[in-house]
Amino acid sequence: MIKKVVTILCFALSFTCLNAQTIKRPNIILFLVDDMGWMDSGVPFGDSSYALNKIFTTPNMQLLAKEGVKFTNAYATPVCTPTRTSILTGMNATRHGVTNWTSPIINNSTDAKDDQFSGANWNLNGVVINSITTYPQLLKQAGYYTIHVGKAHWGPAGTPMSNPLNLGYMVNIAGHAAGHPQSYYGKDNYGNIPNKASYQAVPDLSNYHGTDTNLTEALTLEAIKSLEAPIRLKIPFYLNMANYAVHVPIQPDVRFYQSYLDKGLDTANAKYASMVASMDKSLGDIMKFLTAKNIANNTIIIFMSDNGGLSLSGARGPKSHVQNLPLRAGKGSLYEGGIRVPMIVKWPKIVKPNTKNNQYIIAEDFFPSILEMAGLSQTTTLQKVDGKSFVPYLKNQNLTDSNRYLIWHYPNKWIDGDGPAINYTSAVRKGNWKLIYNLRNGHTSLYNLANDLGEYNDISKNNPLITKQLTLYLKQTLEKNKSPMPFYKSNSKMVEILID
Amino acid sequence: MIKKVVTILCFALSFTCLNAQTIKRPNIILFLVDDMGWMDSGVPFGDSSYALNKIFTTPNMQLLAKEGVKFTNAYATPVCTPTRTSILTGMNATRHGVTNWTSPIINNSTDAKDDQFSGANWNLNGVVINSITTYPQLLKQAGYYTIHVGKAHWGPAGTPMSNPLNLGYMVNIAGHAAGHPQSYYGKDNYGNIPNKASYQAVPDLSNYHGTDTNLTEALTLEAIKSLEAPIRLKIPFYLNMANYAVHVPIQPDVRFYQSYLDKGLDTANAKYASMVASMDKSLGDIMKFLTAKNIANNTIIIFMSDNGGLSLSGARGPKSHVQNLPLRAGKGSLYEGGIRVPMIVKWPKIVKPNTKNNQYIIAEDFFPSILEMAGLSQTTTLQKVDGKSFVPYLKNQNLTDSNRYLIWHYPNKWIDGDGPAINYTSAVRKGNWKLIYNLRNGHTSLYNLANDLGEYNDISKNNPLITKQLTLYLKQTLEKNKSPMPFYKSNSKMVEILID
Repeated sequence: MIKKVVTILCFALSFTCLNAQTIKRPNIILFLVDDMGWMDSGVPFGDSSYALNKIFTTPNMQLLAKEGVKFTNAYATPVCTPTRTSILTGMNATRHGVTNWTSPIINNSTDAKDDQFSGANWNLNGVVINSITTYPQLLKQAGYYTIHVGKAHWGPAGTPMSNPLNLGYMVNIAGHAAGHPQSYYGKDNYGNIPNKASYQAVPDLSNYHGTDTNLTEALTLEAIKSLEAPIRLKIPFYLNMANYAVHVPIQPDVRFYQSYLDKGLDTANAKYASMVASMDKSLGDIMKFLTAKNIANNTIIIFMSDNGGLSLSGARGPKSHVQNLPLRAGKGSLYEGGIRVPMIVKWPKIVKPNTKNNQYIIAEDFFPSILEMAGLSQTTTLQKVDGKSFVPYLKNQNLTDSNRYLIWHYPNKWIDGDGPAINYTSAVRKGNWKLIYNLRNGHTSLYNLANDLGEYNDISKNNPLITKQLTLYLKQTLEKNKSPMPFYKSNSKMVEILID
Repeated sequence: MIKKVVTILCFALSFTCLNAQTIKRPNIILFLVDDMGWMDSGVPFGDSSYALNKIFTTPNMQLLAKEGVKFTNAYATPVCTPTRTSILTGMNATRHGVTNWTSPIINNSTDAKDDQFSGANWNLNGVVINSITTYPQLLKQAGYYTIHVGKAHWGPAGTPMSNPLNLGYMVNIAGHAAGHPQSYYGKDNYGNIPNKASYQAVPDLSNYHGTDTNLTEALTLEAIKSLEAPIRLKIPFYLNMANYAVHVPIQPDVRFYQSYLDKGLDTANAKYASMVASMDKSLGDIMKFLTAKNIANNTIIIFMSDNGGLSLSGARGPKSHVQNLPLRAGKGSLYEGGIRVPMIVKWPKIVKPNTKNNQYIIAEDFFPSILEMAGLSQTTTLQKVDGKSFVPYLKNQNLTDSNRYLIWHYPNKWIDGDGPAINYTSAVRKGNWKLIYNLRNGHTSLYNLANDLGEYNDISKNNPLITKQLTLYLKQTLEKNKSPMPFYKSNSKMVEILID
């Protein structure tokens, strides 16, 4: 009877009762950095602290790591949109088919031109919105106040995927079709200068136009403001805090730049390091706000980057592909430098502070993990979810799984002229084995990450069985998922994975 | 030589010089109200002050009228999206083909079902963006800081037209695909309640969620904040201040509601009047801000509504079609009640204060007028512009034109069951003659607005020549513009205009 009365009351006062029902759900923040490499931090994700870990000043990441667990084998895809789509949908790129970054312009492939291949049949307008259930939608349905701040980049302008409000977010601040800001500077209106604005002019932050406020600071201030509402309403929130930093344009944050020059860094590195410091302050400001509001103990923070650090010369200094050492190469590559990313999870009372977890996990795992954190493991989705929740690893430090396969697939051309495992490459990891497959020529190489993190010793010839096993897994997965593939210009045929 | 140096300097410091070049252009504010009727104001737009003009308390509209000119014969289309599209593009609805309001859902006609007709071939996803040049684009190119606040409603979600940032606006606050708010109440998060949000949940105002701030107040506060940037940057601005008020849902603004009940109004009318008062405060707050910033003298304000006042029973009281008397009918109708709207223009030093202008003008005239105000008369556009600048009437009170034809075309079905000149109707005005053409049966009626503002005396039989002339103009315009037309269900043929 009492239950019935409560139900009737809830019906009458549904908003209030929604609060009561969900008040104990944790708040969740995904702090997703753009293009941040595995080594770009004072937190060592490698076996020991390297020189780079001493150069980057990230006190707030260090504090987060001290209060949580760092994942040393966390993976993204080699470029941003595929990772963001995997997080949003729980699908691997072989399934969602958004294998490359999406243009701000509709129906426009971002693939560079190639002599051998015509473009792959990838989803260049993002996933078809009617074919997916996103986790922000599910969180919102369960009573979460869902907020997106910063870079979205799920689809071109004029497609439903370009607008976070179509994807389950109730609030969108500055997220749209573009993958980077036109400018990080308030003095430049973040690009919104009459007659000079590009597709990358950042929306929504007009209050800071003409001021000295760095974009990362403006996004952080607005993110914090946006949290006032769910706190006031006493409902749990999910914040997708997706800083545009540290993506190009590499523009120094003047609050931190000089200190790196003083440390002796060259201008390119000092500029970049100042953007990392700016991003770290963003994290710290949010953490301080949670503490001030007395909700830090009920708020999960997940720190992650959307792909490896940029390792092209120019923006990142005179020499290419050394920025993520000991990892090989960087953004765009299927070597570890392009896909292995910093990841930290703080979950008060659940995660043991100041710990490390070496289990390999990947972007699509965020979908089921976040839902499990919110108490929503039992949900139905339109799409088949490839990701596996990493929550068990948060709860039990001793759990490991070396039998799982991870797969990467980049049937696209990122830059003119191929680089190390850059352009038309697929890869598979199982345990410590990692296979790199060159789609141009069917060449396979095999590495053992346990003793060759830098992927310099191809041991495929000595290990034909595991090489074949991983190649076969790649072939079967691509076929099963009808994954995008390049086409030969010579005969218009689709590339097929060759098994020796 | 000096000129050359200046040019070089401008090239080097382009943003600064842009300021210098354009600093003397006036700021322009279009204050566009939604669904506000011709009589819903303390400003009498009729020949004398009617009872309704004494009921509505709009001190700020009155102040604006005192400082500017009121147009007594200003026209919109009968529903919102066609008017907004005409303003944006300068095209008459017969040309742009967005003859009805657009759904928030793509490819979804908002026409009611009909026994006689299948749906007209209208542009239900808004105009094709690549076929138009918008005036905000042109203003932005000329150095204006362009801001949209409030209702947009130019196209469904997931189309380029749904996002003001695609249409030449640098800043968009709360404008999207929907034509009305889910709620005017901050306590309702303007609709953004987890799992209860509809397509009409208002974006961008999360700072006010869970507060007592009325939507109209929140939009005004944000609009004022958005003006800080161009003032700081010393560049001219264009503000499209498009309040969602006074569209349904009719939700009383508690700051004003009681005073109307105290005046003896019934609840429906008191609720509506409180929303009008709320809208008027919005206008006043913006005007006060301009004065405080010392820019009122260089800022043009254009006040306008997007169609006639809603005259359906229910939301607007027990009786239908009496809300706009002496004008007949209301929103959705081609009688004057549906299309004649309040309009005021304040342009310091150009417009003679406290004056009245009886020249008939129409929504598409705003396009060339605003451009002329900005000093941009000589512009090229992708589309053919139907509108004529009303700036000459602002500069010369004695100017009149009674030879111009105005045309309205509504080949759609707004409501179940036809109302007075509601559903499948076209109309033409020339001088004081006004023809109403019923697309269902080819019936024509003719009125002389000079002595029959209420359109009750059909004098077509006594004036066959002018009736034929106006009908012929309608027929030729619709054919020339390939305007959308309904199709007979019986034989799938398109309706043709009949000439007696």
